[in-house]
Amino acid sequence: MEQQAVAVDYQAVLEQIAHDVSPLLGSGRPAEYIPALAGVDPARFGMAVADLQGNVYGVGDWRHPFSAQSITKVFTLALVLAADGDALWRRVGREPSGNPFNSLVQLEYENGIPRNPFINAGALVVTDALQTLTGDASSELLEFLREESGNKELAFDPEVAASEAGHGDRNAALAHFMASYGNIAGPVPALLDHYFWQCSITTSCADLTLAARFLARHGLRADGSRLLSRSQAKQINAVMLTCGTYDAAGEFAHRVGLPGKSGVGGGIVAVVPGRCTLCVWSPGLDAHGNSVAGVAALDRFTTLTGLSVF
Amino acid sequence: MEQQAVAVDYQAVLEQIAHDVSPLLGSGRPAEYIPALAGVDPARFGMAVADLQGNVYGVGDWRHPFSAQSITKVFTLALVLAADGDALWRRVGREPSGNPFNSLVQLEYENGIPRNPFINAGALVVTDALQTLTGDASSELLEFLREESGNKELAFDPEVAASEAGHGDRNAALAHFMASYGNIAGPVPALLDHYFWQCSITTSCADLTLAARFLARHGLRADGSRLLSRSQAKQINAVMLTCGTYDAAGEFAHRVGLPGKSGVGGGIVAVVPGRCTLCVWSPGLDAHGNSVAGVAALDRFTTLTGLSVF
Amino acid sequence: MEQQAVAVDYQAVLEQIAHDVSPLLGSGRPAEYIPALAGVDPARFGMAVADLQGNVYGVGDWRHPFSAQSITKVFTLALVLAADGDALWRRVGREPSGNPFNSLVQLEYENGIPRNPFINAGALVVTDALQTLTGDASSELLEFLREESGNKELAFDPEVAASEAGHGDRNAALAHFMASYGNIAGPVPALLDHYFWQCSITTSCADLTLAARFLARHGLRADGSRLLSRSQAKQINAVMLTCGTYDAAGEFAHRVGLPGKSGVGGGIVAVVPGRCTLCVWSPGLDAHGNSVAGVAALDRFTTLTGLSVF
Amino acid sequence: MEQQAVAVDYQAVLEQIAHDVSPLLGSGRPAEYIPALAGVDPARFGMAVADLQGNVYGVGDWRHPFSAQSITKVFTLALVLAADGDALWRRVGREPSGNPFNSLVQLEYENGIPRNPFINAGALVVTDALQTLTGDASSELLEFLREESGNKELAFDPEVAASEAGHGDRNAALAHFMASYGNIAGPVPALLDHYFWQCSITTSCADLTLAARFLARHGLRADGSRLLSRSQAKQINAVMLTCGTYDAAGEFAHRVGLPGKSGVGGGIVAVVPGRCTLCVWSPGLDAHGNSVAGVAALDRFTTLTGLSVF
Repeated sequence: MEQQAVAVDYQAVLEQIAHDVSPLLGSGRPAEYIPALAGVDPARFGMAVADLQGNVYGVGDWRHPFSAQSITKVFTLALVLAADGDALWRRVGREPSGNPFNSLVQLEYENGIPRNPFINAGALVVTDALQTLTGDASSELLEFLREESGNKELAFDPEVAASEAGHGDRNAALAHFMASYGNIAGPVPALLDHYFWQCSITTSCADLTLAARFLARHGLRADGSRLLSRSQAKQINAVMLTCGTYDAAGEFAHRVGLPGKSGVGGGIVAVVPGRCTLCVWSPGLDAHGNSVAGVAALDRFTTLTGLSVF
Repeated sequence: MEQQAVAVDYQAVLEQIAHDVSPLLGSGRPAEYIPALAGVDPARFGMAVADLQGNVYGVGDWRHPFSAQSITKVFTLALVLAADGDALWRRVGREPSGNPFNSLVQLEYENGIPRNPFINAGALVVTDALQTLTGDASSELLEFLREESGNKELAFDPEVAASEAGHGDRNAALAHFMASYGNIAGPVPALLDHYFWQCSITTSCADLTLAARFLARHGLRADGSRLLSRSQAKQINAVMLTCGTYDAAGEFAHRVGLPGKSGVGGGIVAVVPGRCTLCVWSPGLDAHGNSVAGVAALDRFTTLTGLSVF
Repeated sequence: MEQQAVAVDYQAVLEQIAHDVSPLLGSGRPAEYIPALAGVDPARFGMAVADLQGNVYGVGDWRHPFSAQSITKVFTLALVLAADGDALWRRVGREPSGNPFNSLVQLEYENGIPRNPFINAGALVVTDALQTLTGDASSELLEFLREESGNKELAFDPEVAASEAGHGDRNAALAHFMASYGNIAGPVPALLDHYFWQCSITTSCADLTLAARFLARHGLRADGSRLLSRSQAKQINAVMLTCGTYDAAGEFAHRVGLPGKSGVGGGIVAVVPGRCTLCVWSPGLDAHGNSVAGVAALDRFTTLTGLSVF
Repeated sequence: MEQQAVAVDYQAVLEQIAHDVSPLLGSGRPAEYIPALAGVDPARFGMAVADLQGNVYGVGDWRHPFSAQSITKVFTLALVLAADGDALWRRVGREPSGNPFNSLVQLEYENGIPRNPFINAGALVVTDALQTLTGDASSELLEFLREESGNKELAFDPEVAASEAGHGDRNAALAHFMASYGNIAGPVPALLDHYFWQCSITTSCADLTLAARFLARHGLRADGSRLLSRSQAKQINAVMLTCGTYDAAGEFAHRVGLPGKSGVGGGIVAVVPGRCTLCVWSPGLDAHGNSVAGVAALDRFTTLTGLSVF
């Protein structure tokens, strides 16, 4: 009954998953508030796995570019922890956020400290911290993703960034509200610019599985240098598991049982600590903003391989 | 870098932990609203590990009886899932609850459906379900704990149950409130009685590590029979990780990285799926109601053994 | 332009009003959770005015009995202030309550102190206070209403009281919740009994205009003895204006501009301080629980007579 | 017992009040977040009454200039109702707001519609409406106050406006949040500028009693022309009574019993419909932001004259 570190044929598993989830393709709806996202074909599907050595396996649209959106929050968080250690945790919590209507009252009740780095308020604080540390938060993030993925073509999408800015009143409200508590260090308009640029990065399943490998490698980057301490890598995995999929983190832990982070572009990154990283993409979203086929594919992965953390 | 299923000398690890946490003993304060708990010496400490075969290792007060309190919620939940499958999840959610002041407004906002089975409102629904299914929820629970632990002496503590009932107005409010939404099937006073009796069960680290083994054994009971499906066992581990330690679930995931469930009696049960179960007890509580030395001991355990899920 | 204390022909005004609101009769819906109320013909309409000397004028069903419901909260409040002075205001506030979904979170945020005596939580505290002061809150109220109205036939309606008790889980939740903060002195079940009995009193427009006259007479009872100080009578009028018509108090102040208190039986009592009292009854309720034709009739009254406080 | 339209010797009453409240002078604290206000001597006191014909009576510092702050919200509201009738009420409610911590969650719950025009969110909507209607909201307001008071020297205070802008993050958050619901028509930065300029107007008790006379004159301006319909004037008085003194509107109705609007500059305007207007100023504020001596002075006024609405 002891769990074994069984060898897994990732390519065969991915092909099985692509077959199994095919009835779901086209379910759900792409994010509609960003025109550049709304036009994507909801039936697309791609999935990739990267092992610890950097071998990548893929199926379907696994090399097709899509908008990373909130998945970038994982990397921004890692960069701030790498540069500044635990200081960030005085400005943002590590607890799940409860239901969505509380976001603002929670900020008020807890004096401008967001519950975790993956809700929008928390991600704004993380970006503000990175901006203070580096002077150019969005470029810092882009450079990191290029290095870890080995894809020097990765770039911002100005059209997507402009769409986000055009619907940015709620994020502006959050940033000003936290500023009124002294929890935003820089000017709000510049912060919002960097925040929207980060979200707009176009990437692929192949890129993201490679870029996230430090989470499976207990903090080590692609080149073997240390980005995070073992403990910090574990912290990010824990936050992903408890807070990574909007208001469905419990449901995701329940079905998939892996640390994961989703974005409204339809992507989800997941981690099997000590084993591999995964990225799945399919643009049709459920009511919580998570990819319908993406969650199902990860569910199948853990069922087929037994590689859940539970 | 691949994680190995290394053999662990549990006894040596426990002794190391007992040494390491000794400076913390006496920190924190026992729960004060229950006189029978308030009188316990806060410097007590015990810890036990049970492997999948039922070998138990222990240190300190690992055989000393203490009040199980909310740890029993794990077992009640398992009994309802075992008896009635997924029907329960229509009456209670699986998401973390956010900060405590939301408990009631959340219930109102979500029409009487508690967020998860480990907040008090959710545990009341689970007990109500078990009461409907069996006619005697508290006896059913006691019998299960006796069988799995092999300790036929396990018993309710009438003094503790009476103390709880004497401070039961808030639980009565929750139960009536959910009843107003039709989410409580039986009469409220009887429900509260069973709820308080369950919390009052006196047990030990040795008992609880054995009783919780079905969670590490993917659903199999001590006698090898199946209590839960593999998927159901995983569900409970996921709910423990995301919701098991009151409003500090994120912090616990962050530090310890294991499914766990605490009680205000000072105990915490934790699970390493496929490997072992743990129980630690020390009555001094932190501001969230979790044992100070208990959380530190589990933190040491995962650090010393690498047996975190992340 | 100075406002004159013009003589008003109340009978002519009432007949004009009855004519003007006739198109509205049958609009709205009777309260449905109490079977005895749900069966009342929604097209009924009655209205009465009592001057300071006790002359009563009426139109339509002004002598027809109906269920007083929350209108009784005005009288219970007056009895507690009369018996115990300002001590009550340490247990209940005098501020409007904001929107309904806050009722419980507000209680939690403000440590079990309800915002005002006319929301259910506040009325429970007032009844608890009257019960402590007199030992029989509901009989005390009934006796007062009989004396002031001169109608010795006034009585509880056991069927209505039983209906209320059958839907009493939310009030039980409120009472237990406040008890957990120490803001309920007596046992909850007895409190709920008295509360439901009070609401069940059957009365008429004629009775209630007479019984409420102490509010227009600056605290003097029908027999000329003093029930309340001038300041206390003013306090109750102020609370009626700001909190008397559920979540539509602002709208009522806006349209009618008089202190008023409504009940889900379809009645509304209003006061022109120093001039007269009014009671209108029509069972069809709007979305806030106020009588559709009743509010319109009071609106007409202030328009026709200029007797608004604004 | 009928209330009489007794002639009142306002000058004698004011002198009596000044004597009676003198022990309170220096109590409370000036608003501290605006340096220009924080430096005002808290022991200052002035009070004025204007009758319907425009005779003004005063005592103490009744001609001394102070910062009008939120008192201006009454006049902005009147200008919008005058120009655009009831259309405003589709964008802002007329109900009291409950306790302060709800401001944001209430906006979220009610889809960006503020509860009333006197909370900051509501006043931002009113200023946005005036800006849309006139193209220069702050100048429009200043001109109106100059005409009604006859004081052509009235002016903005640039230092105060700059202080407000320097602490404007919370108002910026509210404006962006409502903009995200489509309830702000113009650009947020310009709206905030006009809002802060309005608040900064320096005026005196003498000026404000004269400027507010249309509320006592059922809508007629100083020159006899009609600003508001009788019904609209009544509406504003009703909103002042139920919502005019921050989170202490119930307490103010209770003690004073007049429509009133306070500002953190220490001023309060009150109205006796059909009789007179009042303005009192004393910079020491209570915990709710209302002038300590100002509320006491108005309390004395209604006690001495009987001119409460209740």
